[in-house]
Amino acid sequence: MNLSEKYLSIRKNTEAICEPLQTEDYVVQPVVDVSPPKWHLGHTTWFFETFILLPHVPQYKAFNADYNFVFNSYYESVGARVIRTDRGNLSRPTVIDVYRYRAYVDEAMNNFLRCDFKPELLPLLELGLNHEQQHQELLCYDIKYILGHNPLFPAYAPENIERNLTNSQPGYVAVEEGVYEVGFNGGESFCFDNELNRHKVYVQDFEIATNLVSNGEFLEFIDAGGYQNFNYWHAEGWDWVRNNNINAPLYWHIVDGKWLKYGLGGLQALNLKEPLCHVSYYEAAAFAAYKNQRLPTEFEWEVASEKFKWGKLWEWTESAYLPYPGFKRAPGAIGEYNGKFMVNQKVLRGASIATPEGHARHTYRNFFHPHLRWMYSGIRLVAEGSKE
Amino acid sequence: MNLSEKYLSIRKNTEAICEPLQTEDYVVQPVVDVSPPKWHLGHTTWFFETFILLPHVPQYKAFNADYNFVFNSYYESVGARVIRTDRGNLSRPTVIDVYRYRAYVDEAMNNFLRCDFKPELLPLLELGLNHEQQHQELLCYDIKYILGHNPLFPAYAPENIERNLTNSQPGYVAVEEGVYEVGFNGGESFCFDNELNRHKVYVQDFEIATNLVSNGEFLEFIDAGGYQNFNYWHAEGWDWVRNNNINAPLYWHIVDGKWLKYGLGGLQALNLKEPLCHVSYYEAAAFAAYKNQRLPTEFEWEVASEKFKWGKLWEWTESAYLPYPGFKRAPGAIGEYNGKFMVNQKVLRGASIATPEGHARHTYRNFFHPHLRWMYSGIRLVAEGSKE
Amino acid sequence: MNLSEKYLSIRKNTEAICEPLQTEDYVVQPVVDVSPPKWHLGHTTWFFETFILLPHVPQYKAFNADYNFVFNSYYESVGARVIRTDRGNLSRPTVIDVYRYRAYVDEAMNNFLRCDFKPELLPLLELGLNHEQQHQELLCYDIKYILGHNPLFPAYAPENIERNLTNSQPGYVAVEEGVYEVGFNGGESFCFDNELNRHKVYVQDFEIATNLVSNGEFLEFIDAGGYQNFNYWHAEGWDWVRNNNINAPLYWHIVDGKWLKYGLGGLQALNLKEPLCHVSYYEAAAFAAYKNQRLPTEFEWEVASEKFKWGKLWEWTESAYLPYPGFKRAPGAIGEYNGKFMVNQKVLRGASIATPEGHARHTYRNFFHPHLRWMYSGIRLVAEGSKE
Amino acid sequence: MNLSEKYLSIRKNTEAICEPLQTEDYVVQPVVDVSPPKWHLGHTTWFFETFILLPHVPQYKAFNADYNFVFNSYYESVGARVIRTDRGNLSRPTVIDVYRYRAYVDEAMNNFLRCDFKPELLPLLELGLNHEQQHQELLCYDIKYILGHNPLFPAYAPENIERNLTNSQPGYVAVEEGVYEVGFNGGESFCFDNELNRHKVYVQDFEIATNLVSNGEFLEFIDAGGYQNFNYWHAEGWDWVRNNNINAPLYWHIVDGKWLKYGLGGLQALNLKEPLCHVSYYEAAAFAAYKNQRLPTEFEWEVASEKFKWGKLWEWTESAYLPYPGFKRAPGAIGEYNGKFMVNQKVLRGASIATPEGHARHTYRNFFHPHLRWMYSGIRLVAEGSKE
Repeated sequence: MNLSEKYLSIRKNTEAICEPLQTEDYVVQPVVDVSPPKWHLGHTTWFFETFILLPHVPQYKAFNADYNFVFNSYYESVGARVIRTDRGNLSRPTVIDVYRYRAYVDEAMNNFLRCDFKPELLPLLELGLNHEQQHQELLCYDIKYILGHNPLFPAYAPENIERNLTNSQPGYVAVEEGVYEVGFNGGESFCFDNELNRHKVYVQDFEIATNLVSNGEFLEFIDAGGYQNFNYWHAEGWDWVRNNNINAPLYWHIVDGKWLKYGLGGLQALNLKEPLCHVSYYEAAAFAAYKNQRLPTEFEWEVASEKFKWGKLWEWTESAYLPYPGFKRAPGAIGEYNGKFMVNQKVLRGASIATPEGHARHTYRNFFHPHLRWMYSGIRLVAEGSKE
Repeated sequence: MNLSEKYLSIRKNTEAICEPLQTEDYVVQPVVDVSPPKWHLGHTTWFFETFILLPHVPQYKAFNADYNFVFNSYYESVGARVIRTDRGNLSRPTVIDVYRYRAYVDEAMNNFLRCDFKPELLPLLELGLNHEQQHQELLCYDIKYILGHNPLFPAYAPENIERNLTNSQPGYVAVEEGVYEVGFNGGESFCFDNELNRHKVYVQDFEIATNLVSNGEFLEFIDAGGYQNFNYWHAEGWDWVRNNNINAPLYWHIVDGKWLKYGLGGLQALNLKEPLCHVSYYEAAAFAAYKNQRLPTEFEWEVASEKFKWGKLWEWTESAYLPYPGFKRAPGAIGEYNGKFMVNQKVLRGASIATPEGHARHTYRNFFHPHLRWMYSGIRLVAEGSKE
Repeated sequence: MNLSEKYLSIRKNTEAICEPLQTEDYVVQPVVDVSPPKWHLGHTTWFFETFILLPHVPQYKAFNADYNFVFNSYYESVGARVIRTDRGNLSRPTVIDVYRYRAYVDEAMNNFLRCDFKPELLPLLELGLNHEQQHQELLCYDIKYILGHNPLFPAYAPENIERNLTNSQPGYVAVEEGVYEVGFNGGESFCFDNELNRHKVYVQDFEIATNLVSNGEFLEFIDAGGYQNFNYWHAEGWDWVRNNNINAPLYWHIVDGKWLKYGLGGLQALNLKEPLCHVSYYEAAAFAAYKNQRLPTEFEWEVASEKFKWGKLWEWTESAYLPYPGFKRAPGAIGEYNGKFMVNQKVLRGASIATPEGHARHTYRNFFHPHLRWMYSGIRLVAEGSKE
Repeated sequence: MNLSEKYLSIRKNTEAICEPLQTEDYVVQPVVDVSPPKWHLGHTTWFFETFILLPHVPQYKAFNADYNFVFNSYYESVGARVIRTDRGNLSRPTVIDVYRYRAYVDEAMNNFLRCDFKPELLPLLELGLNHEQQHQELLCYDIKYILGHNPLFPAYAPENIERNLTNSQPGYVAVEEGVYEVGFNGGESFCFDNELNRHKVYVQDFEIATNLVSNGEFLEFIDAGGYQNFNYWHAEGWDWVRNNNINAPLYWHIVDGKWLKYGLGGLQALNLKEPLCHVSYYEAAAFAAYKNQRLPTEFEWEVASEKFKWGKLWEWTESAYLPYPGFKRAPGAIGEYNGKFMVNQKVLRGASIATPEGHARHTYRNFFHPHLRWMYSGIRLVAEGSKE
């Protein structure tokens, strides 16, 4: 696949995710962390227009000069932006306009990639494509949230990525104490700046589960009063539970005494064997405390990752999202990509059923605030002594 | 026009207001006071379904049982409601579904009105139709807000109601002190319960302007530092100005040193002769203080209303929205219509360019909170001594 | 009593109210509407220093130039002020410093009143003394709130003003429809600007209760589920009830199934015959609705006030606090006294057990926001047809 | 010094810190993170009463049963607590009552320690004493905040701990890459559970400054527009700067164009050579970015700590506050001491001029949220390549 084909293939995937949506679904923003699908479609396009076409294609004319104001997200270097909480207030540009914007930019990109593309722009192009893939994953989260918080509980599609949400055999694998190397090992392929540099860490003995925590196991925690017992919780987690009346994972509903779960196929009976999904770090840590176990650090996870199957759900780690030794922000707007988020967030490792093919790596460092749970997040436990 | 024709004509007018909209415009709710147009379309339909069809047409089957949850507004008597701030989060039912809902209810209403309608339901039908007309007016406000707060400033339609926004000749008319009667005088036609009962009031001498305050006059207030001088303002008005950085009426923008105004036709140069519109009570009262004049009470306005032309803009009065002597809430959900809002709101009198034909009366009591200004609100002054 | 004696006598009363307090009680501000007693002592002193001594006594030297910053309240004309929510954060000036400030200003005032006082300052002096008396009443409210919201429920004093809280004989008196005069009738004595001008109003027939609603009657409302039935409430009142989990008047506590009431003498069993106290306008209006009666307007109250005993509790009226015909703000800081509060507040009429002797008048217009209830507020009903 | 002498000596130090205060200073709580000094005095006493006297001294009678409600802080296991934001609303118990409470508990403790003390309670006693010492340090922070945010800027005492705030010689010392041991090494003396267990970590080459950043150096950052340039800031830090209008360290004031600093001796000219104090993590990280350097990790700090002088200010590290390998919460209320705070906070290392003698250790892990700066916090830089 040449560059242009790769570009168009990834761009098409984004639109395929939106294919089952109604026009109205593209527009709303039920909570601040969710963006309207329309915005994702525009923002990823804006990235290519702003960082590749406008500076590097002399004859290129912006589709609409006002779109920088509408589709910029956090890039402080590139002019005023629509503050995040306002995204759901914008009825214009329309969905059709946004698709026209995509087609316009894709045509220009296609021409550029086929003819005049300069190899020194390859890292920027790769970043743009990985950025688009990240938004593909966010699109899945956000679409699920928009439909799953509608009182009519509409299904997204009967056949969908959630059928891949299966678990592995239970068990534990051991890792021996010692010095290990972590981080991206260089090589030719793409990685984000936060995975560099590869470096040594010292890891203590530990045993890590080969499977993810299941819905059934978490139901035991609920039935044991886990959401009512402060002993299992961080102080901030306990405040979160009480201030938001949390009593189950996101998308779980108790109806006539039975647990149902909203999924992309609609409301369904809870499958006890399926891996538990849509929990916050606070819930993950509380569950681990209840089991007298703990979460792995991101280094433990990376060192052990060859010994178990992963990729169904992002797995909360105990690690805070911090710079690796020698990390430097790149200059300019691109440098805003990762470094400025390195405070108050937790690392998640692995990948999920919503991660685009080819976008996963065992050195990949995903990160979210500890109270969030609308992404495909799950739990893998580490045992110290206790493995009940 | 028979009942059925009248019903369908009013219902059709609502849809005509929405005709220029894009699907996306129906969905959003930029601030809590604005409702998505889709919601207005559904809510007015829900009114006829809930209060006429379901209780009085035995064979009638609800279009969708979940719609009570989605389209109820404040009627506490009729089950759970979507809280007002959530309306803009709902992508479903889609716009097409809502139009189907309207068609379904309209067909059932049409059949009922042509065949089995009982005369004792006439007051309820009249209430439903007047309710629909009130929402037609709110639709105009809300659509203007949605488009006028979009960074692309899209026009609603080149030809629109705002071309009717003209002013009268300046001057003052005098009213003599004495006992007057105010309130709806009974008769056959419709009125809201808050206009009853007709009763005597004592009014002092006053002189009231024959025209509305113009944009040009208000610009003098701005240029004289009116928004920076606390002496003109109520304490709560002054807080409102400072907390929200208010420095001009809604929809006014200063661009390159020139005042522009967003209107239904798009951004335009400010017309100094046009009646001033989209001001809050706080601004109206501050302007009156600056002119050393005052606002009329609602009784002064009603008593004098034969002596000037009105109907272009709702006119702020000094009167609080309170019950008339002998006012009683009707029993049941219908009784929630007016009485429960009779605290902390101000009366506006007259009508506006957005008021449906036949919906205006000189005894009509409109009401809003003093900080609101997205409706078509203007200022008529009363002089006491000073008429500069 | 000459001017100087009158001045010193009123000033001494303020300090007498604080006599039972501990130093710590002078400092705190548990909610925004309550001011620390220390602040009242300083603020009333600041009034005389700022408006009388500094402008009219040439050799007078301010006690401490920074005190304008600390003790100004809402007078925007007189420099920066400590915002209301910050008052409880100030440990300095100390209580002793504030008493020194009082003594310093009182000595200067005493000298001025005995020797050089100019008669044209009499209105300002009267305003200052009435201002001091208003703060005496607020001191009672605020001290009760501070002690009554302390988990130790300390008593203020065993003997206190609340022993005067008695009720009249039940019954109703009738007033005939017609034109009446209301407002202060001029004369020599003091009144606030908001009581002027005396003017005619038209009043309909009504019957008004001779006694106040009692604790026992209100308990019936509670037991009948009054706080759970939205039908009795204004929409904003209903929100207030639910957002604040209101289920009884302020200072009522249910302990082991029995109703207790905190009073200035400490926690005591609820006296069912005593007039109900510490209710908001929302509660007053809801109770009236429950009784199928209503509150009087302030004009009805004033017209009927000769026919019943009043003065135990401030009585909520249905009237909004609005300017009387011909009302004008005085120029300068004094003009900020009343007019700028004339929006979103309700008039209370009468006086209370905390009102200083000589400060009450049947034309007096007290005003508070409808949700407030830490003042001595009660309910007098008006019957229309129903007097159950 | 025997146990009883040690106990009384530490308890006396707490009271010595409060000696210069006025009664009023003991009561207020200007922001949520500051507690009234009165509360510190009571809370530390409550600790000994609740965890030692009540369970272990059979004849001991609680001083006042309601004090558990007033002086509990975060110990969810021990009954209802006064929520943190309410502490500043409590005028009672009075300061004198609190000192009586201290004397009462101290006498009981003294008797117990002299006669019946059981050696197995020693860890609990040590914890109580270290807890008291932590509150001694917090008392210094809180007193400074209370006085330093009063518009009169009162001094605490002319002679005070801040005279010890001196700096070391500038320079850098190098540490070589390799495996190091960190954490408390056991031994006889006290440590907190969060310092255990001692374990190996791998550290890369680095060079760390021998001195702290000075006021003069930070002034260069301000003058270079550091607070206006988002490039230096984390995204959350940038929000913090803008939402709170931050433009200098806490207690810095620009008056007539000159920088002043509030200190315990009052307002003074800024001393450029003194170590910079009262900055948040966000400011520390932004300053490091501006210098093209970075903050140390807590392990780097601990490994290098023998090579430089520390103890003047707590030093922000890049490390998040996380459990060490093998960390377990102790059972019961004591277990709430540290573990439940291990999310969203940053580690500070060292000690400060407010740290009680004998309370400092190079393995001590202090922690605060990244936006806080009312503690004695400063900056030590790590150079990677750049040491400008």
